[in-house]
Amino acid sequence: MKNINTETIKKLIDENNVKELRDIFIKVPPIDLADCCNELEDIKDLVFLFRYVKSEYTADLFAELKQEKKEELINALSDGELATLLLKQANDDVTDFIEELPANVVSRVLKNVQKDKRNQINALLNYKEHTAGSIMTTEYLELLDTFNVDEAIQTIRKIGKEKETIFTLFIRDKERSLVGELGLDDLIFANSSDCLKDIMNKTVITVNVNTDQEEVAKTMKRYDLHAIPVLNDDQKLVGIITIDDALDVMEDEASEDFIQMGHVSPIENSYLQTGVIKLAFKSVPWLIILMVLGVFTSLILSNFQDTLALLPVLTVFIPLLMDAGGNAGNQSTTLIIRGLAIGEIKVKDYFKIVWKEFRVALLCALILAIACFSWLLIEMYIGIVNYPLEETLATLDSLGVFKARLMIALAVTITIFVDVIFAKILGVSLPIFVKLIKLDPALISSPFLTTIIDIITLVIYFVTSVYILHLVV
Amino acid sequence: MKNINTETIKKLIDENNVKELRDIFIKVPPIDLADCCNELEDIKDLVFLFRYVKSEYTADLFAELKQEKKEELINALSDGELATLLLKQANDDVTDFIEELPANVVSRVLKNVQKDKRNQINALLNYKEHTAGSIMTTEYLELLDTFNVDEAIQTIRKIGKEKETIFTLFIRDKERSLVGELGLDDLIFANSSDCLKDIMNKTVITVNVNTDQEEVAKTMKRYDLHAIPVLNDDQKLVGIITIDDALDVMEDEASEDFIQMGHVSPIENSYLQTGVIKLAFKSVPWLIILMVLGVFTSLILSNFQDTLALLPVLTVFIPLLMDAGGNAGNQSTTLIIRGLAIGEIKVKDYFKIVWKEFRVALLCALILAIACFSWLLIEMYIGIVNYPLEETLATLDSLGVFKARLMIALAVTITIFVDVIFAKILGVSLPIFVKLIKLDPALISSPFLTTIIDIITLVIYFVTSVYILHLVV
Repeated sequence: MKNINTETIKKLIDENNVKELRDIFIKVPPIDLADCCNELEDIKDLVFLFRYVKSEYTADLFAELKQEKKEELINALSDGELATLLLKQANDDVTDFIEELPANVVSRVLKNVQKDKRNQINALLNYKEHTAGSIMTTEYLELLDTFNVDEAIQTIRKIGKEKETIFTLFIRDKERSLVGELGLDDLIFANSSDCLKDIMNKTVITVNVNTDQEEVAKTMKRYDLHAIPVLNDDQKLVGIITIDDALDVMEDEASEDFIQMGHVSPIENSYLQTGVIKLAFKSVPWLIILMVLGVFTSLILSNFQDTLALLPVLTVFIPLLMDAGGNAGNQSTTLIIRGLAIGEIKVKDYFKIVWKEFRVALLCALILAIACFSWLLIEMYIGIVNYPLEETLATLDSLGVFKARLMIALAVTITIFVDVIFAKILGVSLPIFVKLIKLDPALISSPFLTTIIDIITLVIYFVTSVYILHLVV
Repeated sequence: MKNINTETIKKLIDENNVKELRDIFIKVPPIDLADCCNELEDIKDLVFLFRYVKSEYTADLFAELKQEKKEELINALSDGELATLLLKQANDDVTDFIEELPANVVSRVLKNVQKDKRNQINALLNYKEHTAGSIMTTEYLELLDTFNVDEAIQTIRKIGKEKETIFTLFIRDKERSLVGELGLDDLIFANSSDCLKDIMNKTVITVNVNTDQEEVAKTMKRYDLHAIPVLNDDQKLVGIITIDDALDVMEDEASEDFIQMGHVSPIENSYLQTGVIKLAFKSVPWLIILMVLGVFTSLILSNFQDTLALLPVLTVFIPLLMDAGGNAGNQSTTLIIRGLAIGEIKVKDYFKIVWKEFRVALLCALILAIACFSWLLIEMYIGIVNYPLEETLATLDSLGVFKARLMIALAVTITIFVDVIFAKILGVSLPIFVKLIKLDPALISSPFLTTIIDIITLVIYFVTSVYILHLVV
């Protein structure tokens, strides 16, 4: 059944073949169905599906549709149909898609939701974005600690179907405080007369409604949890977060870090779903900031204009050197930012890291310097690049062509050596410093790193050149 | 109990306080214990824990220890103790840590493992790295399709404890073929006399032993699976992968992509656990490749030496322009690489993406050009940067200072405008092209992008300058 596609579905809809459609809905996973249905151009086709295929099948499909299709569909359905549809949706899913709907559609949705569900959704809508509260669901299963295993299983059978998960059960006492948790597997392994109080796990790992969602995902990964309870400030259980939601968060946060390293502000939706103007405005601010930071490079270059005028060939190596420093520094920054992001590196490890990076840098610088010197000599010898050496010779008139080449290559090589060491030490220091002052290393480190390294590179280069080549300005 | 630390544990070991230690082992999650125990310097302390605290508690701790501690501990334990320890370890965990052990330790470990477990581990060790086979576990629960719910629950109670998960149950027929799967929750909701054949889910999503682990994680995320069955080439069930392992894979792959964007080859362990020499050798090759690619920039610069000699002030803007192009291109590349990585962008979307990016680029280029022109005038006017304009004036002798400034700013601005458009179109094209020829976009795109953009930038810059400033070389 895997070769289902939009055409097949469209054909069955046109033929009014509800039976075959139901059959497909049973066999094909909702996410695959959604991929097809997202391509249906006429919203009437989608309405047909939601009207005539049983709602127990279409509920899951709705959850997987893309936002714009959800909105179109809501507008096309009658109040009664909308109410039926919403009844089967998980509260956290409703909250998710409501957040991006226009106000008039939101109020229509809320009007057609059962009263107690509406209250829960309203509560969820009030939590700040990116907190545990905003991604949790209120449909969890809570059992009294005085229940025995048999009573617990009976309760689960009665009310478990409407819950987000029954793999993890939360145990409360009479005062409605969370006192333990229990895996469904442990319930199966226990004797039917065992009291939950005696078999439950008493050290429950929890998060607060205001905990950052990234922190929640990290905690769930660290402790291999299928679901984590969310407590309010009074330490009462108000919701749970399941592993599939944590997975989405992890992916979103990884994307965010990744994208920020490319100097784009995080985009909420996918590239294809984000508008042109929004994409441009996520990119432009960084380009301007980076351009303005470039003033420092210009400053140094204009200060060394006289040296460059004396020996124009020096210009040729500026991009090479700036790139080498930038790349070396960026390598280190990248490793540290990722380490900080997944919590494997702590700010307190700073000195350990610098000492390690110093040795790494020394080794890298040495190898790169040897490679650079050899490469430059090859480059000059076979003449891939046409260095205007006549002027060089005029300036360095005491030297022959060969020696002049050697000295220039040496100046470049020494710069690379010193530069790589500086760049790598700075590359590990900057993100840790940024983290220390509670800013986001992925966002801040790289542009400033590049600017600082550019400046350092140019200064080292000019000082070395003047010294080695005895240039008197 | 959260404030447990290495000192507390060390103290209790020194006091031989086994009772209190057992208490801690019951209450503190293994991963937190492992963090403490990793810091115990004397391996004898760790041996004490594994010798005197019950093995049902220490088994989980062992799984969470870092690799070097595992190795030390294995060397310090007697054969009998090692056998007891290994008995409680999941096969996939044993495979994981065995892969990085020295050969003599591996053979000692395998010698002390029960025979059938050894066979399974050996089989796992034979799968290629990064495939489903290499991360799966053989400890899954399989039920016959003719069982009824009661028989199923009895079987689970009998043998389920040794299995990796019982949340997803796999159903086979008499020919040992996988015919369905069933969530433990559905088993609970079913009637005790229902036959598994009738209540199981018949469309099972599976992967092959050779499927790439990244693909496995993506599939599990797409279908919200807690466990996925792994089939061999004969379509027989040979193992399962659980969601916690998929989560680790997702994080590793996200790290890999992230780190590659910083031009570091992927490192297997964390930064702190990777040796200095290894780190250096993960960095150096890229630095050398990037340096060699730099030859093209040098080539262009040396070709335009005469123009630069005529108007040295042009040099001052080279880094600014190269950075602007590089940054703009990188922004686009980053978005596309991430989109490709999470499967949201397909190669077939190419023309849609180019058209979108062209409009984004146009908008970005326009805004940046306006910002650049204004900024350059401000820079020149308040004299933050000291541009040697006298020479400029000599070259452009027909113009006054103000007009000369204006013309230079104009040349730079036009370059930025054209450059940003080129860079962004190239930025989306290159990763898609790299993906098309089946290479890794995260690895290949960025260095070549930078090189190509550097070249384009310089050519545009010099051509524009010569034209606008009427420089005759």
